[in-house]
Amino acid sequence: MARKPVAAVTSADVARLAGVSRATVSFVLNNTQVHRVSETTRAKVLAAADTLGYVPHAAARSLRAGRNNLVLIPAAVSAIGRLVSGWIDDLHTELEQYGCTTVLHAGRFPDPVTAARAWAELRPGAVLALDGSSLTAGAADVLGRAGVRALMAFAPQPLEGVCTVAFDDQRVGVLAAEHLVASGRRRLAVLMPRERGLSTFAAPRLAGARSVAARTVATVTPVEMGYTFASAVELARSWALRDLDGVFAYNDEYAALLLRALLDEGVEVPEDVAVVGCDDLVTAALQRPSLTTIRLDPPPAAQVAAALHELMENGTTAPLPGVEPALVRRGSS
Amino acid sequence: MARKPVAAVTSADVARLAGVSRATVSFVLNNTQVHRVSETTRAKVLAAADTLGYVPHAAARSLRAGRNNLVLIPAAVSAIGRLVSGWIDDLHTELEQYGCTTVLHAGRFPDPVTAARAWAELRPGAVLALDGSSLTAGAADVLGRAGVRALMAFAPQPLEGVCTVAFDDQRVGVLAAEHLVASGRRRLAVLMPRERGLSTFAAPRLAGARSVAARTVATVTPVEMGYTFASAVELARSWALRDLDGVFAYNDEYAALLLRALLDEGVEVPEDVAVVGCDDLVTAALQRPSLTTIRLDPPPAAQVAAALHELMENGTTAPLPGVEPALVRRGSS
Repeated sequence: MARKPVAAVTSADVARLAGVSRATVSFVLNNTQVHRVSETTRAKVLAAADTLGYVPHAAARSLRAGRNNLVLIPAAVSAIGRLVSGWIDDLHTELEQYGCTTVLHAGRFPDPVTAARAWAELRPGAVLALDGSSLTAGAADVLGRAGVRALMAFAPQPLEGVCTVAFDDQRVGVLAAEHLVASGRRRLAVLMPRERGLSTFAAPRLAGARSVAARTVATVTPVEMGYTFASAVELARSWALRDLDGVFAYNDEYAALLLRALLDEGVEVPEDVAVVGCDDLVTAALQRPSLTTIRLDPPPAAQVAAALHELMENGTTAPLPGVEPALVRRGSS
Repeated sequence: MARKPVAAVTSADVARLAGVSRATVSFVLNNTQVHRVSETTRAKVLAAADTLGYVPHAAARSLRAGRNNLVLIPAAVSAIGRLVSGWIDDLHTELEQYGCTTVLHAGRFPDPVTAARAWAELRPGAVLALDGSSLTAGAADVLGRAGVRALMAFAPQPLEGVCTVAFDDQRVGVLAAEHLVASGRRRLAVLMPRERGLSTFAAPRLAGARSVAARTVATVTPVEMGYTFASAVELARSWALRDLDGVFAYNDEYAALLLRALLDEGVEVPEDVAVVGCDDLVTAALQRPSLTTIRLDPPPAAQVAAALHELMENGTTAPLPGVEPALVRRGSS
């Protein structure tokens, strides 16, 4: 498994082989327009870089040329559901047309400023946060000083210096709870996933459901579940004891597990318990009973890509439409 | 939506504020041991960097210090299924303990060397390819010259200069087809997903199934399907015409869609058609009928993280165990 050691090639090696200064190598490889370099010299540098297999750094290049084509999305892979992953993939395809590349940064950090410092090290041209709480004023400042030209976030409130796509997880919880109450449920459960990185989304959903309970006769009980069938069965077995008649199951994936476990335990859906998911995944309509869910339509990827590009180029763009959650009623409620 | 413009801060600004040379700033911020810098100067530089909010580049720092803690995984988000996303998340947690950060690079490139150049621009310390075909000798050479110290890939054959985790998608196709033939099926379909980035995995699975057909009386027909229920229904409606009695449905997600569409169209599973998925997702056992699938157990994330770290530190590591696919027989076949 030993790897043939290859010495890292630097611009100094290119300069030596081409017989020019490091500065000249830099001018040529970063396409700097400020300094004149003859075509002969340019050709010599390019040939030397090619011979040595020298790749300029994105970061160094971005700083010299004043731009970088990297769009950084901070996100743990597993926290990205089927819904979001398709959208990110579309976004990436659209961004490619502007010469931009998407990277997902999976780092977890104690606070927003530490996170921003880590992202800034990659010198991205843009940062798109799916969870707006990470782009505090302090974080935005760190990113701005590192030359990040476009900041965009999904967030319930407009953020200072950030192009905000209005999206409120609390509204999702409100919609789910209002629907359950309207269909006669009074003792509501809200599923809190045990998996990492999801509480950012689950906590405001719970708060939304609680705000509905506060103004109706309904009660809200948070119930924990992990993304395993064993955990769903454990929760389903305790259902009779808990005496709950409706559940907002975080999203369609957790809802599918809980639905199967409830049916297996002899709890009738929707007669004994109404179940509501979220995301309107392809599979939601295929459950038996089919799953009531909440559809979230992010702005078209093409529009978001265009806005990111405009922010990177001009520092400003037209406002983007927000995400308005919509209930899709099916057999499970 | 206009953003308050913040001028990017460079090490020259830090040098000016601290009243020292850029080289001194570099020595201090990159913790270079070669040059002596007094504690007073060090404190002045750190204070200036702090005041200005200066973040050193990962790339520049890596080159000077000879190391970088970035582990780059080339992958489109949507091509990463539930199975792999959990594993990557675990891997990331393990890598954090070595001070490493994981990034997913979503770029799509015309050839492996162009891809390697784009990855190299981020100056990662390690590249982990889920699809070994991207780490050709040429690509490995580009990465080595850019200072990437650890190359790891899932691949059917050991790759030159790459720590290889043996995994053969062809073997997955062989297992599925052998099981279908052993349970009396003769006219096999192999589902080819229409979604981007999946043909790398689907094509060798089809080849594996075909190799089984070549040595038995069975036939293999590739059938296309997109990840939508409409596409599954269209495929299910053509089933009688096609006269196929078994299907390897690429993975559990496509299998779930096709299973529901077949049942809706009155095609009995497993009586008329046996269905086999892949990945053994949590939901596979919950389908009705429960889904026969192929389990893929990657090496423990902790072991892979340790190997990546060792490769980055020492350039060599002990071989890792491969992925041995295993059939999990359930009600759908």
